Amino acid sequence: MYSDLPDSLVVQNDSKILFLILDGLGGLGNGQGGGTELQVARTPNFDALASKSSCGLLTPIAPGITPGSGPGHFALFGYDPIKTNVGRGVQEAAGIGFPLQNKDVAARFNFATADKDGKIIDRRAGRISTEENERICKNLRQGISLKKGIEVFIETVKEHRGVVVFRGDGLSGDINDTDPQQVGLMPLDPSPTHPGAVQSAEIVKEFVQQANALLRDEGKGNTVLLRGFAKNTGFASLEERFGLEAVAIAMYPMYKGIAHLVGMDVIPDLTTYAAQIGALRDNYDDYDFFFFHIKHTDSRGEDGNFSGKVKVIEEIDELLPDILSLDFDVVVVTGDHSTPARMAGHSWHELPLLICAETSRVDSVVTFDEISCLNGVLGHLYTKDLMTLALAHARRLKKFGA
Amino acid sequence: MYSDLPDSLVVQNDSKILFLILDGLGGLGNGQGGGTELQVARTPNFDALASKSSCGLLTPIAPGITPGSGPGHFALFGYDPIKTNVGRGVQEAAGIGFPLQNKDVAARFNFATADKDGKIIDRRAGRISTEENERICKNLRQGISLKKGIEVFIETVKEHRGVVVFRGDGLSGDINDTDPQQVGLMPLDPSPTHPGAVQSAEIVKEFVQQANALLRDEGKGNTVLLRGFAKNTGFASLEERFGLEAVAIAMYPMYKGIAHLVGMDVIPDLTTYAAQIGALRDNYDDYDFFFFHIKHTDSRGEDGNFSGKVKVIEEIDELLPDILSLDFDVVVVTGDHSTPARMAGHSWHELPLLICAETSRVDSVVTFDEISCLNGVLGHLYTKDLMTLALAHARRLKKFGA
Repeated sequence: MYSDLPDSLVVQNDSKILFLILDGLGGLGNGQGGGTELQVARTPNFDALASKSSCGLLTPIAPGITPGSGPGHFALFGYDPIKTNVGRGVQEAAGIGFPLQNKDVAARFNFATADKDGKIIDRRAGRISTEENERICKNLRQGISLKKGIEVFIETVKEHRGVVVFRGDGLSGDINDTDPQQVGLMPLDPSPTHPGAVQSAEIVKEFVQQANALLRDEGKGNTVLLRGFAKNTGFASLEERFGLEAVAIAMYPMYKGIAHLVGMDVIPDLTTYAAQIGALRDNYDDYDFFFFHIKHTDSRGEDGNFSGKVKVIEEIDELLPDILSLDFDVVVVTGDHSTPARMAGHSWHELPLLICAETSRVDSVVTFDEISCLNGVLGHLYTKDLMTLALAHARRLKKFGA
Repeated sequence: MYSDLPDSLVVQNDSKILFLILDGLGGLGNGQGGGTELQVARTPNFDALASKSSCGLLTPIAPGITPGSGPGHFALFGYDPIKTNVGRGVQEAAGIGFPLQNKDVAARFNFATADKDGKIIDRRAGRISTEENERICKNLRQGISLKKGIEVFIETVKEHRGVVVFRGDGLSGDINDTDPQQVGLMPLDPSPTHPGAVQSAEIVKEFVQQANALLRDEGKGNTVLLRGFAKNTGFASLEERFGLEAVAIAMYPMYKGIAHLVGMDVIPDLTTYAAQIGALRDNYDDYDFFFFHIKHTDSRGEDGNFSGKVKVIEEIDELLPDILSLDFDVVVVTGDHSTPARMAGHSWHELPLLICAETSRVDSVVTFDEISCLNGVLGHLYTKDLMTLALAHARRLKKFGA
């Protein structure tokens, strides 16, 4: 499934590894001398850390490939992001803490508003409240019954969004979205993407028909749109692969979900940076690997808010001494992908990277940004190789060959 | 077995290629401004050579993977080090010049001292002399007789160390070490690592029983401990692959052994740098490819002797003009892996590299070390690609495609 050379060399020790991941960290200047978000931000603490680290640049997937959050994070955790690309449905289900089993098929859904002919007039049902969503989901759970041997789980995510999980022998996730992606169109039939998924598509169709019948009298959320069908094929966990007891310290369901999929424990109910740092401190003794995820760099980038992203970077810089006051043998700072505010979305650009450890070969980089890191000794790496480097610095890999 | 693109493009000419390999060359600073071994060493000759070379950095295997000597050297010679990983036994047998045949199974052994119950009290038999080892080996050769069709060869290496080679149809090298790795324990039975090796393990067990019976009255070397079982699967030689008549100019058995495995001639009995340089001169006319191996950079690194490693580097620097007084079309200087004195062992860090040839694109690098080479035109390469570059500079590769 992935190159297992590092896996075959793992030894145990009591070292501690911190991955501080600023989501969407990489940025873009304006092409006329105006710097990137990281270059513009005042980051004395990141710069000081870079001064005693090995620096470089990470390509998340491959040159020119823009990753979603899933592949970006799988690569960070040492999984080949191309071979382990899991569908959004599986990620989302894990992200709400749904106890997915192997071979479950999951999809995201939206409650949407259809007119009397069934054409979509609002793909998000006016962003109904989460409470409203929960009421409707309960109603669906009571009313829907699929054919023998197929279980269905209908779960609220937030506002108009939810997850549906199908469980039963031989199900396939190779099913096209039913969301037509624009208003004025009818929902699409859940069609198979290849012949092996014909029966699974029929089951989903039955689900949609029963759901729509039950939703007929709802005002806004009178239909469902499904997308991101995916089968949970299962992953070797970080503990199985690398002997790492790992914990995720993240606010947002998506990232907690991905962490859960690779076997991390997930700290619940974190809503502030202070709470994240508290959780890091409280769990310091119990884990080897700490995934500390900052979402807002990405959010501001997605919003096209350059100065907002700069401000988040500066906030995290101020928190850095507190984070590093705990003693980690290996500290990695990078992101899962770039989200340049000037593009208001994810991009393929490389990410700045630093690795600070006793065995870091220290280079001339004294400021932490996308251009300075070009002078780093790590050069240009693929993100999927980062975990191997972190394990090496943690002295958790023995020699390959005699 | 390996990517054969360069192999398919080989043409013949009378160019000469020198690989000057300083074992364990790469180092580490102290993280506080103190340089690496190469940075601290005074190396006017390497620096002058770098000034007219293309420079870069080599990753021996993959980021974060620390190579043993075998994979490190196979990569230098253009073999994929992951796919051509051979066991220590095969390397060691080749290293003493034993004429290994395809499908031979070899293992290293130690003479060791056991108490009257068979528990190991000295894993190295008090480092008995090489002469004593030879006497005991002769005794074993005369006394041991395995089942029909199985030949056994028992060879002295040095002091308490030896090599045993089993020859016969269908033998497997998938056998666990019998060395318990610590005193106070009984030797382990030679168990198969998978069912296909059951019979081979039985043959090894018979060997051990007969050997121990013959050794019963020895004082120190009254038992044998075996490790590193490996089958010689055979390699296409440098001549077969690249049309290179190659010679190894090395002092130590391990490196001579690896060179022998890829079909190099091996100059025997070299014990000084002067003798190595003499051998280089004496054999200059007869070969295309010269593997000139310096062991002591690695030895001092392994010993954690920073200043000792600096001194060896300076010694080799002084010898460089003499080495280069012979006319090579391509000169490569690098190592097989890093052995930072501060880590007292092999590491995964990149190696500085220079390639000097008429066709080198000369860069701004004027000092030869791990940090300066970051500015070299070669960038970051995998070691397994180095041989292709050397062949290209030697004009020994034709164009790929029309």
